Amino acid sequence: MLKEYCRNQVALIDRTLDELLPPAYPPVIFEAMRYSLFAGGKRLRPILLMAAADAAGGDGRRYLHVAGGLEMIHTYSLIHDDLPAMDNDDYRRGKLTNHKVFGDGMAILAGDGLLTAAFEAMLSQPGVDPAVLVAVVREVAAAAGAVGMVGGQAVDLQAAGREIDGDTLRYMHKAKTGALFRAAIRSGALLASASAHQLAGLTEYAEQFGLAFQITDDILDVTGDEAKIGKPVGSDAKNCKSTYVSLYSLPTARQMAAEAVATALAALEGFGPEAAVLREFVNYLLTRES
Amino acid sequence: MLKEYCRNQVALIDRTLDELLPPAYPPVIFEAMRYSLFAGGKRLRPILLMAAADAAGGDGRRYLHVAGGLEMIHTYSLIHDDLPAMDNDDYRRGKLTNHKVFGDGMAILAGDGLLTAAFEAMLSQPGVDPAVLVAVVREVAAAAGAVGMVGGQAVDLQAAGREIDGDTLRYMHKAKTGALFRAAIRSGALLASASAHQLAGLTEYAEQFGLAFQITDDILDVTGDEAKIGKPVGSDAKNCKSTYVSLYSLPTARQMAAEAVATALAALEGFGPEAAVLREFVNYLLTRES
Repeated sequence: MLKEYCRNQVALIDRTLDELLPPAYPPVIFEAMRYSLFAGGKRLRPILLMAAADAAGGDGRRYLHVAGGLEMIHTYSLIHDDLPAMDNDDYRRGKLTNHKVFGDGMAILAGDGLLTAAFEAMLSQPGVDPAVLVAVVREVAAAAGAVGMVGGQAVDLQAAGREIDGDTLRYMHKAKTGALFRAAIRSGALLASASAHQLAGLTEYAEQFGLAFQITDDILDVTGDEAKIGKPVGSDAKNCKSTYVSLYSLPTARQMAAEAVATALAALEGFGPEAAVLREFVNYLLTRES
Repeated sequence: MLKEYCRNQVALIDRTLDELLPPAYPPVIFEAMRYSLFAGGKRLRPILLMAAADAAGGDGRRYLHVAGGLEMIHTYSLIHDDLPAMDNDDYRRGKLTNHKVFGDGMAILAGDGLLTAAFEAMLSQPGVDPAVLVAVVREVAAAAGAVGMVGGQAVDLQAAGREIDGDTLRYMHKAKTGALFRAAIRSGALLASASAHQLAGLTEYAEQFGLAFQITDDILDVTGDEAKIGKPVGSDAKNCKSTYVSLYSLPTARQMAAEAVATALAALEGFGPEAAVLREFVNYLLTRES
């Protein structure tokens, strides 16, 4: 059921992204931006935003511009992460990375363009009280910025090739990937006028989801199937990156992931069937193959 | 008088920027962002926003968060422009460029962090109708993005080392520098609830200001004093960059600048003494030394 649900949501999101960022002048920059935006992303953050709005009793399909903006932010971060000055990756999801196709300078600009377009897209969201929209987009900006994603990336860059401790690892991932998941889910809740109680539950869910996502990501880098994850297995070890597996062993990492999933599910206890998708989603992390 | 006015406005803007982006964790990214944000910028875009609000009968000092956000966007664009993958500049305003101090990867992140912080700052602007704030920030995003600044930069990158024609040069500068000047001035007008007539006059002023700014920038690269402009004179010619001077000759470029200034002044004809600063500003471009 989750698979079909996601297929439908992805179709909606892809159509929205195509409308929000059609090809325009100058062609090269739009080509570069769209190359990565339509490179087969799972649209996880937009889907989570919409599912959280549904869980709070709203209709997630009403917030596609904000959802699309989150995917643009995620995509820009991947383009910049892959640059030679950062992780220096040639492939992403089985395709050449942006800078391998368009060159380093244009890839930097494509990332800049997507980050900027994300805010334009989110602020173009119709049917929302402008005061709520301002609060939501401001929270997304904080999550994506130097106290969130960009800050986590900076710590990651400094840690490259060095062993780091568990606390630093947890901070890094919380900032680098967790913050945007959290903002996605909270945005859906806030847009759908969630109660304070619902918001608290969804926030806890979001934090545990982010943790479980990262731990299972680290596990996949050891146990995954290259064809399915679209990048070489074992790249973390090769790059001397500290991970949940390298710091805690594979069995302990599996156990930590299971605990995070259990805590996420517990946070949804007050919710009814309208949170079924969120429950399925976090369970799926334990068996994900990509 | 303009000098003292600017000194006062710069003090206000600098204090706001310091409050909007205080040092925080992780230290390295905030250090890198603040290094460029406080590297002696003239704060032209924030000052223009405030002066436009004044000209429309408002009080520009009420919009310091939006004004500060514009300076963050301008600063991020300089950091990314200076990177080896782009213009590869070692000095900016007489100081080492961001990547020379912090490395290429951290400079990319510092730019990303500033661009994101800009939206957070603008959306934190108190005392403005949220619907107006959404419209203003959305316009700034469009001006900074792929149809504006980022697009102009992409054309510039493609044109590097090639001669381009006058139309392409005009498009490039209109997008690369003009769009953000235009958004700054229109933002001030919109925030101060300018009438449609005032907005039209200020928009025309903004476009001519941007044109005069760019032409005089090209002139300075030929005739300027290195110590005053903070970078080597003749760098455009060295990098085979097409400029208003290289395409039209120095005397013609001077004449074009004078015409743009005259048109900008004419656009302010319906305004009274509250637009005196804007008049002085555009006149000053003809005698600027940096």
